Order: sequence, then structure tokens, then C-alpha cells
Amino acid sequence: MSIITILTDFGSSDSYVAEVKAALLSYAPGATLVDVSHAVPPGDVRAGQYLLSRTWGRFPIGTVHLAVIDPGVGTPRRALAAQVSGHRFVGPDNGLLSILPDDTRYVSLPVLRDASPTFHARDVFAPAAARLAMGARLEELGPVVADRIALPLPGFRVEDGLLVGEVLHVDRFGSLVSNVPCEALIRGAHVTVAGGEVGALRRTFGDVERGRLVAYCGSGGTVEIAVRDGSAAELLGAGVGARVTAQLGGR
Amino acid sequence: MSIITILTDFGSSDSYVAEVKAALLSYAPGATLVDVSHAVPPGDVRAGQYLLSRTWGRFPIGTVHLAVIDPGVGTPRRALAAQVSGHRFVGPDNGLLSILPDDTRYVSLPVLRDASPTFHARDVFAPAAARLAMGARLEELGPVVADRIALPLPGFRVEDGLLVGEVLHVDRFGSLVSNVPCEALIRGAHVTVAGGEVGALRRTFGDVERGRLVAYCGSGGTVEIAVRDGSAAELLGAGVGARVTAQLGGR
Amino acid sequence: MSIITILTDFGSSDSYVAEVKAALLSYAPGATLVDVSHAVPPGDVRAGQYLLSRTWGRFPIGTVHLAVIDPGVGTPRRALAAQVSGHRFVGPDNGLLSILPDDTRYVSLPVLRDASPTFHARDVFAPAAARLAMGARLEELGPVVADRIALPLPGFRVEDGLLVGEVLHVDRFGSLVSNVPCEALIRGAHVTVAGGEVGALRRTFGDVERGRLVAYCGSGGTVEIAVRDGSAAELLGAGVGARVTAQLGGR
Repeated sequence: MSIITILTDFGSSDSYVAEVKAALLSYAPGATLVDVSHAVPPGDVRAGQYLLSRTWGRFPIGTVHLAVIDPGVGTPRRALAAQVSGHRFVGPDNGLLSILPDDTRYVSLPVLRDASPTFHARDVFAPAAARLAMGARLEELGPVVADRIALPLPGFRVEDGLLVGEVLHVDRFGSLVSNVPCEALIRGAHVTVAGGEVGALRRTFGDVERGRLVAYCGSGGTVEIAVRDGSAAELLGAGVGARVTAQLGGR
Repeated sequence: MSIITILTDFGSSDSYVAEVKAALLSYAPGATLVDVSHAVPPGDVRAGQYLLSRTWGRFPIGTVHLAVIDPGVGTPRRALAAQVSGHRFVGPDNGLLSILPDDTRYVSLPVLRDASPTFHARDVFAPAAARLAMGARLEELGPVVADRIALPLPGFRVEDGLLVGEVLHVDRFGSLVSNVPCEALIRGAHVTVAGGEVGALRRTFGDVERGRLVAYCGSGGTVEIAVRDGSAAELLGAGVGARVTAQLGGR
Repeated sequence: MSIITILTDFGSSDSYVAEVKAALLSYAPGATLVDVSHAVPPGDVRAGQYLLSRTWGRFPIGTVHLAVIDPGVGTPRRALAAQVSGHRFVGPDNGLLSILPDDTRYVSLPVLRDASPTFHARDVFAPAAARLAMGARLEELGPVVADRIALPLPGFRVEDGLLVGEVLHVDRFGSLVSNVPCEALIRGAHVTVAGGEVGALRRTFGDVERGRLVAYCGSGGTVEIAVRDGSAAELLGAGVGARVTAQLGGR
């Protein structure tokens, strides 16, 4: 039986997540539901993109991902379903799904007259996700879309022997997760954030003393800046968008 | 296999929700557990009623709903199980379940001597919910109750060509959800909240510009007041209990 | 199919819990996942111990418990799997699991080279939990460990006809949960907290008027101090570590 993951900005105090789950379990009895997060800041499509990009590919082939951060619900923005690498997705056409690979196929979901104009997660996306989980092919759900909205996550660039990127996410521990990829870096590479020195790239925060800043290659494959047993975000006053650099090659 | 939904005011930092789930899975192996919310303010029966009323009927027939907001736990208040429209319920006799239809049947659950006087959710309600999920008939669980506590959600009234009601819930987006039903209203009906003008009833918040107040028929079938990409609760300083009016008929 | 419980300090705003669940469902398809809590304060091993000690034994025999509060991740601290009373556990060797009974068997999990040094929950503990859920024997997972780190929860002592202990946990309702066991106490036993009088041990908070302090035998089998429809933590300004006494025998 299929897994359906759920990523929204609905929080946990309202009835909305439960209403979505009721629809999923009504149309796809026995599906395994997994919450990714419902704590995305209201309307923050970029934050949703980051969480989706970190998680979808780790689930088993065949998983359906419902991702709804949708400030434009009820406007003429399209509703999408998508498929790539054996995974299926439903979500609004506002860039949220555009973190998926280039060979992703998209179709446009019909919005029926009785769908609430403010709750497509329940009335449009959940039924479509359930149909996919029950075995429907992507193309059965609607006409092919070739021009979905693209909103790429910020990229990095190479500049004077440095990789230059930015902070994409601040986690619960106050660690700054950047978009600077680790593959090209070697242990000891010099790292800066928000214009300040962090020091040499280490293996983990356990490599420095408590309370000290440290950069290392994080669990998402990019450079992270943390404080051991503390918060880098607090210590540095830095957050999403802060500039991060890492030196290419050896010292 | 049955679905069991869980609605409490236990929060997510304590062991209580997990202890309830352990009991459910011990007595009803393989049940599908769905959290409705555990963020109901401590002891706020009315808030629990609202969430229960929004969600229960959307789950498949046969679902069991455990709803425990129970400031009187351990006092002589009765413990109830209930059934209506193919759904089953367990919860305290403090009005929480009284949002169910008039033809609901109620029985009183025995409270065994070894039940913790402060944790009936685990020791009384979860075992009863599990028995229902495993196929027990309602009347097997205890004697019929004809006089359960009634605590109706606030209603609306008709007054001088207006529907007059109040805000029942403020959601994560700061939208004010009223109890004024939409069926009798037409697009363009004049709406007020807390004595101030909101304007004409629209289809969705996408129909106004960012930062503007808007009233529309919400996903629960009642009038909602929101700010597009903002918070009506913050803008208006209004919350649960604020008066809401909507004009009947055309302008 | 096995149940796997999950207890972490990862919060609900990041991708970490979902990444752990993706690993669990990849290696143990069909497992039933139950969140214990992810709201443990970052790095607070003691708080995790309390939640684990309250919950594990209530789940059915055969359950696997993944518990990761792990400020030393990536350092040479060992990764453990454990077994006792038909339950299995995975978690770091930092004392978290040392609340388990004395006859618990422990093995050391290998940390493969490609495991992220900052995310053993995903790369070490989840795969091990999944293997146990799929039927692996404990000893298949690694070499026996005889000297795991011990970090007992604070105990109580008998002193001048009193049981003397301390507050282990403050719950969402502001109730103070102590480590003073109830077995030896009788109704009416005199209780103090943080040097102040609470009064006689009652059956439940319903036994006093609203707003009044009350001590009773809590759902975990120890003395709790609460305010009916209020917060004892707020009223008393007391928290974890506050001294609790209860009189032995009758008045």
C-alpha cells in the first residue's frame, strides 16, 4: 500500500491537516500517511521547497507527496500533479514543485465547482494524491503542462577560488544550512558566513569545544555552520539569505 | 481495519499522547491512528467542540473518534461512548460530544478501580475506543445514557434582515471563522465583524489585493473574515466571540 | 507488523523527523510509526529519559523504540541497540537508554563510513531499528556492550519518616511530576514542594476547588503537584529539580 507524505503551512492547532487526512483515507483506504511538517511559515513557498527537496527522494519509490503551501489558492493559479523517478507529487503551480528534476512530467488537475476556493488541499490535492496512491497514471489526472512556474532555490557560484552561496534554512538547533555543496571541498577549507570567519571545515560539531562556531558538511550534503551545544543563528544574528563562502582546493 | 482519530489538549511535549496510542495499539492492533490536534488550549471544551465538529463527518464510516478535553477528569462526571451515522465516539460527559446530531446514542463507560483518576484518556477512553474499533457494539460498553450534558456551540439568529452570529475559531492564518452559515447568503452580501465593515462577500481571499480585509464563504460552510497574506485577527484585534453579521438577500 | 516509536529533540519544523521516517519505511515497509515526542529541549538527555521511561513499557511486546537525543553525535560515543522484556531499543550511548532495567542487553552498532557525522538518527539508528522490526536478533547487529554509560534518573530517599525526592518533569498543564513513589503513601499524607506546604495527598485535582494547589498520586505512579484549572509551576515558580517530600505512614 502506498505512502503519502504531507507538507503544509497549516500548523497543528486547526482542523485542516485532519480534514486532508480524512480525504486521503476516504479515497485511499489503508494508505500510510507521513507528516513532513506543518510548521512552514504561512505562505512561505521557499521554506516549503527546502523541506520538500530534503525529503522526497529518501522515501520509497511509489510514494506520493502532497505539498501545499498555497497563498494563491482560489485564484487562477493551476493545480498540478507531477511524476519523476517513480515518485508522484501534487501541489499548487506557484514554484513549490519546481525544485524537482528537469525530467519531471506535470499535468494540470481540474478544479471542480464544489471545491472550496480556500481549501484545495482537501478538495483538489488530496483526492488527486489518493488516486495516484491507488494506482492511477499521472496522465489520467489531467492535461500535460509544459510551462509550470519555475522558482529555483537560490544557487551557488564560483568566484575567485571560492564557492559562494547563502543560508537556505535555520534549523531548530540554530544551525545555518547553506546551499554550498560539499563535493568540491576538502577538509580544512576556509569558511565564512555573513562576512565573518568561521574557520576550517571540520567533520562534525563534536570536533570543536562547547560554545564554539564550527563549519562542517551537513547531512544534506552542503556546508552548515553551527555552535556546539548552542545556536549559530543567535550567536551570529544571521539567518536565511546570509552569504556563505568556502575556499576551493587546499590551503 | 479501523481508523481511530485522537483529539486532546495534551500538547506534544509530554508522554500523554504516546501513552494513549500505546493503549490503542495494545487493544486494537493494526488500527490506523490519526491525530486531529493536541494543541487545544488546556481545558477549552468549546475549542475542542469546534475541531471535532469540523472533522468527524469527513472520515470514513466506521471511524472511532477519541476526544478528550477533560478538566473534570476524576470527578463524578460520566465517561461516554456514542454512535451516530456509522461513526463512534468516546469522551467525557462535559458537553464536548454534544455537538453530535440529535439522534446520537450514548452509553456510560464504567471507570474501573485501577484507572488513574487523572488519566481517563489512557485508562478508560482508549480501551473503549479500541473495543469499538475491534467490532464491539456500543451497547456492550455500558448502560444507555439519556441525559448527557448539552453544551451547544453558539448559534446564529436572524435579525432585521441580517444573519447575526459570532467568531468560533481563529486559525493559524489569523482568519476569523464564524458560525454564520453561507447557504442563505448571496455573493455581494454585506458583512461586518466586531462592529466594523468588511464589505461584500467574495469568493476567496484571492479576490482582493494583498493586505486587504475580505469576507468569503469558508471551507466549513460559514462566513470567514481574513486578510490576504495577513492576519485579520491582528488587523482587527478581534477573536473568538466577536459579533459577525451578514446581510440576507441582495443589495 | 512491528511498531516503531520515535523520540527525538528534532522539533517539527525541520526535515529531520521525516528523513528518519523515510529510512524506517524504506527498510521496514509497513511498520507502524508512532511519535512519542520531538519537543524534547535540544540536547536534554534527562528530559528524554523521563519520556522514554513513561512510555516504552506501555507498548505491545515486540515494539522497537528509536530514541535519539544525541548532542555527542559524530564523536566517538558508541551507538547502541538494546533489548529487554521483549522490547528493543536504539539510541546513543550517553545515558539515554540507561533508564532501562538492569537485565537489559546492549550491543554496539557499527557506524559506516557513509553515515553523516551529524545525523546518526537517519543513517545509523533508523536502519538498525528497521532491521530489528524486520526480525533481526539483537546480537546480529553488533558486539555485546557490557559497560554502557549509566545516567540514572534522580532517585528518592527516606529521611526522618519522609520520602524525599524532586520534580522530574513539568507538563503542559503546569503540573509538577515528582519521583516520589506512591506505593508507600496513604491518602492524607502531608506533601511539600520547594519548601512550601501543599497539604494532604488527595485522589485527583477534582478534589479541591478551582485555583487551589493539590497533591495526588499521578498517572505515572508518583506524587504530582497541580493547581486545579491552573498551573502549579506558575503559581509556585517551581520546576524540574524542586524538592518534594511526602510523609510516610498516617498522621
